[in-house]
Amino acid sequence: MSTISPLAPSSVVELPPIAGVTARIANARYKDWDRCDLTFVELAEGTAVAGVLTQSRCPSNEVEWCRTALRGEKARALVVNAGNANAFTGVRGSEAVQLILSLVSAELGCDPEQVFVSSTGVIGEPLPKDRAEAGLKAVFGAEPCSWLDAAATIMTTDTFPKVATVTAMINGQSVNLNGIIKGSGMIAPDMATMLGYIFTDACVEASLLQTMLETATAKTFNCITVDSDTSTSDTVLAFATGQLEGVRLQSTHDAGAQAFQTALDALCLQMAQLVVRDGEGASKFIAVSVTGATSDDSAKIIALSIANSPLVKTAIAGEDANWGRVVMAIGKAGEPADRDRLAISFGGVTVAREGCVVPDYDEAPVAQHLTGSEIDIDVEIGLGSGSATVWTCDLTHGYITINADYRT
Amino acid sequence: MSTISPLAPSSVVELPPIAGVTARIANARYKDWDRCDLTFVELAEGTAVAGVLTQSRCPSNEVEWCRTALRGEKARALVVNAGNANAFTGVRGSEAVQLILSLVSAELGCDPEQVFVSSTGVIGEPLPKDRAEAGLKAVFGAEPCSWLDAAATIMTTDTFPKVATVTAMINGQSVNLNGIIKGSGMIAPDMATMLGYIFTDACVEASLLQTMLETATAKTFNCITVDSDTSTSDTVLAFATGQLEGVRLQSTHDAGAQAFQTALDALCLQMAQLVVRDGEGASKFIAVSVTGATSDDSAKIIALSIANSPLVKTAIAGEDANWGRVVMAIGKAGEPADRDRLAISFGGVTVAREGCVVPDYDEAPVAQHLTGSEIDIDVEIGLGSGSATVWTCDLTHGYITINADYRT
Repeated sequence: MSTISPLAPSSVVELPPIAGVTARIANARYKDWDRCDLTFVELAEGTAVAGVLTQSRCPSNEVEWCRTALRGEKARALVVNAGNANAFTGVRGSEAVQLILSLVSAELGCDPEQVFVSSTGVIGEPLPKDRAEAGLKAVFGAEPCSWLDAAATIMTTDTFPKVATVTAMINGQSVNLNGIIKGSGMIAPDMATMLGYIFTDACVEASLLQTMLETATAKTFNCITVDSDTSTSDTVLAFATGQLEGVRLQSTHDAGAQAFQTALDALCLQMAQLVVRDGEGASKFIAVSVTGATSDDSAKIIALSIANSPLVKTAIAGEDANWGRVVMAIGKAGEPADRDRLAISFGGVTVAREGCVVPDYDEAPVAQHLTGSEIDIDVEIGLGSGSATVWTCDLTHGYITINADYRT
Repeated sequence: MSTISPLAPSSVVELPPIAGVTARIANARYKDWDRCDLTFVELAEGTAVAGVLTQSRCPSNEVEWCRTALRGEKARALVVNAGNANAFTGVRGSEAVQLILSLVSAELGCDPEQVFVSSTGVIGEPLPKDRAEAGLKAVFGAEPCSWLDAAATIMTTDTFPKVATVTAMINGQSVNLNGIIKGSGMIAPDMATMLGYIFTDACVEASLLQTMLETATAKTFNCITVDSDTSTSDTVLAFATGQLEGVRLQSTHDAGAQAFQTALDALCLQMAQLVVRDGEGASKFIAVSVTGATSDDSAKIIALSIANSPLVKTAIAGEDANWGRVVMAIGKAGEPADRDRLAISFGGVTVAREGCVVPDYDEAPVAQHLTGSEIDIDVEIGLGSGSATVWTCDLTHGYITINADYRT
């Protein structure tokens, strides 16, 4: 629909197969379009599952179902519907989810509790059951598809399909982790929400996978923001098929667990940053790093205050080294900070230190940095050793155009 | 500089004199412009003062000074500099404040602690002492000016001067309360911050005035938002000259105290709403009312989450009754809410109830309401009796243009 984000990766990475994972796609016609919009991923028996879901107090039916199904710790299938979020749709929306569960569990001969469902797109309209049923019948008979096709099929307002892969050597074996993700606003509930899926052939016990996914999420998915708006549907699920002999992880103390965590962190970071790179209207990718805070949590709150400030984000869009707005955002975060100890850098060049602009400040190298598309803002609080990095994009006319200049 | 906000009042109210208050203005040339930018308000001996100041952890020198001086509870003068915020300017900025204090206290023969100073405009550049001194010497000899002239002199990016007045009958006497205020972004620290000043001829003991001002602020100034960014310089000061015989208030239980509080609330509400009406890029004035929350505080958090959501604000700019985004903003607020009990109205027309869109929803009257410039969003949470109303404006291309499309 729109031109590809200027921040999209210049090349698409090739994803290896993951034993025990088979994806298929079909066009369920959830919207009146000529593209596939239903993704069906079949998972080998014994696949462990973990998930992190939106903290919204008003989540979608699908999020509530995933929260229930995660208690069973096992997955046989994932269904993703694009074009309709099925959120705030009451009983009729819930019926559509139940229909999908019964059709898929009958097809695979598994418990409904092993079927995970996500939907993304327009909210307030119940997912049409007839289209879901026809789409599922088509997809059950479809040929397996590529990872890239699956990533493209879960898109809504995304401008490019988002895939990531990491290979780790664990206990002498090569373990693959693949991820597909969609998202363009951190959330725009009638158009785009963040949905991410991770697949590995390692055998990881579900409760350990859950712990590891939460660890990774805290410093990756929970460290990105496009517009400070949190989805009713945000979902990240991780599936470990256990098809790889020789890598069986049950505890964080097991040999290889640390290597797996590192690989998972790296995969989640790639996936999270891809969402920022497709931020609505984004023209600059911004990394905000805070050091010297009284704790890591405090540093993250300050970093997010900077990354969510419309005045900071519009300044970067305008290629303006407006460190005063960074001071403002630090000040409003409510965390310990002392104006007279702050240091602020853009692109590694210190512009302000100890409560005022540096002597003989030369704006030229900073202005040069800001003409680029990868922007670094570094803040030293000067009070402790807490640190955090978050990623965001600038706030441009493109964001307003996408979100205001239309009528639903 | 810019055209007047389309939300500006159609006529300017006439303010009565306040006994014991004399304002004068001069051009200190804080910027290279042909307008007055220095306001000097002389206050009668015995004037009581109260104030609320930014919660920013990185406040300006002026805010820190006002916090100190408020302890003395008495005021003889107010100085407001426009065009330079003198924030994040270290020792040199502090020296400029000290110079102003010494010049004014010498002129009036009062303690420096009775002189209140605010500055607003570009941050990071120390207020030039030579210009402040020349400006003060000019203003000391100037003729008294009108309230409207004073309101115009404290402006920065504001598109119209903001004045308000309330007359209350207290203990059989007519008491006047006048207010002048500036602000266009809730905050844009290199250009605009919210500064408000209230003057009354009543005699109100300073600690009572402080209590009453805090009460009023909680439901007025602290219930507006343009862009969620909080100033390093936000200041509201209230001065009671005590020139009016017969109204002497010392406690909230005194006869007339409730009437004075009501008048002060009304004045602060007028002032606060004027700032929203001059919100950067604003084309719609939006009132968000939340009822049925578990407490008033909870209702306010939810209302502010809606009012600060860029997706809600862009939807209103696009005249789109996007209640799904309202659900999203309720959900992300983190306060108790049950998706299946929510009701959402635009312009008094219920669009969603009990977790889904109302049967046979007719969008026409809602669409008609959204074409206007005064928008009402009402949310019923359905859990308790907590309520709150906040005011904001839409998020438009104008905001991006003001804040991004320039280089400092």
